[in-house]
Amino acid sequence: MHRTKVTVVEEALDANNTIASANRMDFDRAGVTVINFMSAPGAGKTTLLERVVSSLPGVRVGVLEGDVQGSLDADRLAGLHIPVVQLNTDSGFGGECHLDANMVRSAIPALPLEEIDLLIVENVGNLVCPAEFRIGEDARVMVTAVTEGEDKPLKYPLMFRACELVLVNKIDLLPHLDFDLDSLLCNIDQVHPDVERLLVSSRTGEGIDAWREWLLRLAVRDRVAA
Amino acid sequence: MHRTKVTVVEEALDANNTIASANRMDFDRAGVTVINFMSAPGAGKTTLLERVVSSLPGVRVGVLEGDVQGSLDADRLAGLHIPVVQLNTDSGFGGECHLDANMVRSAIPALPLEEIDLLIVENVGNLVCPAEFRIGEDARVMVTAVTEGEDKPLKYPLMFRACELVLVNKIDLLPHLDFDLDSLLCNIDQVHPDVERLLVSSRTGEGIDAWREWLLRLAVRDRVAA
Repeated sequence: MHRTKVTVVEEALDANNTIASANRMDFDRAGVTVINFMSAPGAGKTTLLERVVSSLPGVRVGVLEGDVQGSLDADRLAGLHIPVVQLNTDSGFGGECHLDANMVRSAIPALPLEEIDLLIVENVGNLVCPAEFRIGEDARVMVTAVTEGEDKPLKYPLMFRACELVLVNKIDLLPHLDFDLDSLLCNIDQVHPDVERLLVSSRTGEGIDAWREWLLRLAVRDRVAA
Repeated sequence: MHRTKVTVVEEALDANNTIASANRMDFDRAGVTVINFMSAPGAGKTTLLERVVSSLPGVRVGVLEGDVQGSLDADRLAGLHIPVVQLNTDSGFGGECHLDANMVRSAIPALPLEEIDLLIVENVGNLVCPAEFRIGEDARVMVTAVTEGEDKPLKYPLMFRACELVLVNKIDLLPHLDFDLDSLLCNIDQVHPDVERLLVSSRTGEGIDAWREWLLRLAVRDRVAA
């Protein structure tokens, strides 16, 4: 009984990874670098995208917006005149709390892959399940807002472990919070030692240049590797 | 094919509701009122509990802490000398992003039901799945922090619709945010018209008296009904 259950779980994960590999091949063929962009609800993902998507020299950006329902974030980003595709998990996907490789695959025909260099997939706001499903990305970036407290790496370790960059957002609010930044950074190191991290404020623009440069470096790295 | 899939989903939901009813009967037998307490990660659930659990006259409180892993919040609350039981979803439950009726059922033997009047179940931080699973509760309360933005009711409508009280937390930060409180309240009304809501600050204590009174009223309502 126990053995059967384990087998089923492995098969389900394999199916996701198989489809993620197929996505990966499509993205590679089109020369598109893909980021899986994750955070808790309201950490500032969309604002951090608004800050950079139109100002990456030589890199044409597209966004795939994942939400349970609605298109509020997609509408905001479409105003920046970049290609944006909305993927809702409640229509046909049972209101899932995350994107998986198959959902992303279903959106690929709607994405203008030949017209972009960098695709940012904004996942559903959730610190648990999005980290469990590869979608065919080159890199995973997460946002943690200082308003969420110092303990989040310890409570949601998989998310912090799964990513290559942690954006520590809303640092403009630090003077108004009982928040120990060193403690957060120490907790990040505890679950993912030396993972790259940038202190940013989507509101004031502090640290946004470094975020933009990180994206440029990733896009260039991918081009050199191709 | 389609029909088969629908049947399976209904059975899974039924199983949860069947177990939730069994939990409900156990809670009723012991005369315990139960709250399912939900929010996104870092919205302030634990601090809002710390503010009230020791100061409800005539109501003995216990807490069931749901987390993917660790016992940080349980440790904080145990310092207040109330019964606290930790339920981790990664040990035997596959790292689930929510509590369901069966997980709560597995914790019941560890709960001193005869020694408490009110059990607060602090769910995993997540605005999607926790709203989908009844656990045998009397009431569902959610917290939305103003730092998360005004749009959350529209993006996570089921959570706002499923609850009887919305705590709008971190209002001490309003002077430092580009945040339109009227817009949030209007969005709440759009998905759950006239749901009760309280403006609170877990940090300064503003609005905490009203939160405490709401809990007292619920406990009394439950006693009169019994």
